[in-house]
Amino acid sequence: MSKDQNPIAVPHGYRPLDAASLPPYLAEHPALSARLGGGPAAWQVDEVGDGNLNLVFLVHGPAGGLCVKQALPYVRLVGESWPLPLDRALFEHEALVEHGRHAPGLTPAVYRFDPVMMLTVMELLEPHIIMRRGMIQGIRYPRVAADMAEYMARTLFFTSDLGMGGADKKARVALFCGNTALCGITEDLIFTEPYMVHDNNRWTSPQLDDLAAAFRADAPLKRAVSRLKCRFMGSAEALIHGDLHTGSIMVTQEDTRVIDPEFAFYGPMGFDTGAFVGNLLLNYFSQAGHATEADDRAAYKAWVLETVEAFWLGFAERFGALWAERPGDAYPAALFAGAEGAASLARAREDAIAALLTDTLQFAGAKMIRRILGIAHNIDFEWIEEPDRRAACERPGLLLGRELLTNAAAYPEIAAVTRAARDIEARACG
Amino acid sequence: MSKDQNPIAVPHGYRPLDAASLPPYLAEHPALSARLGGGPAAWQVDEVGDGNLNLVFLVHGPAGGLCVKQALPYVRLVGESWPLPLDRALFEHEALVEHGRHAPGLTPAVYRFDPVMMLTVMELLEPHIIMRRGMIQGIRYPRVAADMAEYMARTLFFTSDLGMGGADKKARVALFCGNTALCGITEDLIFTEPYMVHDNNRWTSPQLDDLAAAFRADAPLKRAVSRLKCRFMGSAEALIHGDLHTGSIMVTQEDTRVIDPEFAFYGPMGFDTGAFVGNLLLNYFSQAGHATEADDRAAYKAWVLETVEAFWLGFAERFGALWAERPGDAYPAALFAGAEGAASLARAREDAIAALLTDTLQFAGAKMIRRILGIAHNIDFEWIEEPDRRAACERPGLLLGRELLTNAAAYPEIAAVTRAARDIEARACG
Repeated sequence: MSKDQNPIAVPHGYRPLDAASLPPYLAEHPALSARLGGGPAAWQVDEVGDGNLNLVFLVHGPAGGLCVKQALPYVRLVGESWPLPLDRALFEHEALVEHGRHAPGLTPAVYRFDPVMMLTVMELLEPHIIMRRGMIQGIRYPRVAADMAEYMARTLFFTSDLGMGGADKKARVALFCGNTALCGITEDLIFTEPYMVHDNNRWTSPQLDDLAAAFRADAPLKRAVSRLKCRFMGSAEALIHGDLHTGSIMVTQEDTRVIDPEFAFYGPMGFDTGAFVGNLLLNYFSQAGHATEADDRAAYKAWVLETVEAFWLGFAERFGALWAERPGDAYPAALFAGAEGAASLARAREDAIAALLTDTLQFAGAKMIRRILGIAHNIDFEWIEEPDRRAACERPGLLLGRELLTNAAAYPEIAAVTRAARDIEARACG
Repeated sequence: MSKDQNPIAVPHGYRPLDAASLPPYLAEHPALSARLGGGPAAWQVDEVGDGNLNLVFLVHGPAGGLCVKQALPYVRLVGESWPLPLDRALFEHEALVEHGRHAPGLTPAVYRFDPVMMLTVMELLEPHIIMRRGMIQGIRYPRVAADMAEYMARTLFFTSDLGMGGADKKARVALFCGNTALCGITEDLIFTEPYMVHDNNRWTSPQLDDLAAAFRADAPLKRAVSRLKCRFMGSAEALIHGDLHTGSIMVTQEDTRVIDPEFAFYGPMGFDTGAFVGNLLLNYFSQAGHATEADDRAAYKAWVLETVEAFWLGFAERFGALWAERPGDAYPAALFAGAEGAASLARAREDAIAALLTDTLQFAGAKMIRRILGIAHNIDFEWIEEPDRRAACERPGLLLGRELLTNAAAYPEIAAVTRAARDIEARACG
């Protein structure tokens, strides 16, 4: 983590923008002004950065809108006491462009990247909302499982040794090796701090004090999360998004877009698939806290678990199909020729996807635990105001998180995971 | 592989040296001349490059000697039709210095690196010989198991996430990502070509035609070697030597030095440990071919297998001890405090070392097969002149190689491996 580092160097010419200084900046770039229409006086700027790290501006003009994201040299959530390198904007832009190329239509279009101001000007996504917020309201998104399956199958396959040449991949690995500050945040906040006494941690207290203490004393759990951390640090499988929870997905009923890949680097594929699955499961457990007399959320909870299953099955199908079509360097076509070779390669794909499910569940478990015991919490739970009610939702989330993290191999099919979620919640509320 | 690439660019000023031009070059550098003593006229130069890729000169002067290794822009074994980037000399130098720092006394001292001439001037190792040559003669090296255990424990531990900080490690990963040409050679020559029809392949024919054909049609074997290739390409565990066979080790009865790390990059630890184990096992199977009436080599064969066991047990002990002393980022000290934490970390180490033995055996198996069916053969076998006798030695090597590659998990202890080597040889010769 960067907390103890010196203040961050900023490029000559860098200055954080605000609602007053952004319009003149945009006016200097005709291609951007043209998208807005009219002149700066006619542009409405709203700073909405509800994330933890950056400034985010939504700009509306007579002809259209823009989204502008600018990195700050510190963690916005914490302040200047926690410096953070600006070059994360560079890695975010690289990943956004590369993932957009592999998964067209599933990321925002990028109009401009400014390496001095460390800002990216993107498509304004309207009327999209953050998926997490929609799920808290109980809104179903019929496309999201298939779209996220497609996004992850394509971005992970085409950036891996399964889908590209080894030398080209190593050049990309080298580039993203620079994103160490953000990797360090993940290493600390997800894989370390929730399992020790640390000022960053918080949880619903005293209700969850028992589980927080039990996890800190849980030797098998700490070995499992450390082994997983080692995988996160040393497995350069694919260019992963690195922060693919439901707050990094913007949705409508008809459209799905993945945003904010500033944690991108070459890491284990299961970290992305696990982030999505883990955050869906957290939302599942939170639903009881949002139930009302008019809506017990039972039907929505069923939809959430259906989405977990449909995502994984769709991902496995799409990932396998890409691999069958386009063998890369790792499993070369020459070794798997003819009908027999195709059958053997199908078996290799099944084995690899089964191993990836195990990884997915372990990372999902780590993500679930850290969102309940660590520094960064989810509004799925945070918006349940009454602490007893919130803790009653969080507790089964922690229990399933621990089970997935330590015992993932016992879940060879995704249906076993959703069944476990139902069972754990039933027992917790029974 | 680089065969289809365009000719390699060479730095301005680069020229391959020879016995005539090397002395004037050395004379320009007082620190080097001083080691030799006298003047260029008194220096004896022998070009001994018996490797596959480079020029190697041994220089003797009145006061001492030097070894000079210079990269050529093509594969020496094949000629200018197979270009190879010169910057491999840069990676070799980087690795030599870093491994030398971690494992003092187990590599040659480096006196000068010239990034234009792409040459390294090193300590002349005398009276050392290449370990492989000594083993063919049946010479025992009492220090080699412990020295190689120490070398690999230290070089692999201290360059991994277990033994260093995550951000520093990523910077090193990025640097070595440039060594793609040599990684590509390994990917092709070890993990691909031996399992397909390819002009590069050769084997003792017709004696081994049956096994070569069987391996090309062996679906589980081809899946296993491809999965291993994927690990080789995507597991940035540690800065590995990358070519650690018994031809990369120089020995006397009292001293052991590891040379030639030009294939170095961040890869799986088991590739180094497996290279050493696999090449010891190949030598074991070759001994019957070097037996004479006066010496049946039975005692030497026992020593070779004792060396396999002593190496692995020593490596596991030293690697575990380093980890116990100096926890790095992956398994942080904060999660393993106190007596209970120490016990838990000991368990984590045991699990990790057990997994590393499985990796080791798989990579050993791949190395054994490629040295019998692929482009580059070992003199352990090649020096057995009579083809029937040679093939009779190579056949059990292929069989154990296949067994280790496809069934490594069945060998949870190194003694099970040496037992299998004895059994397979007994059956082949019975």
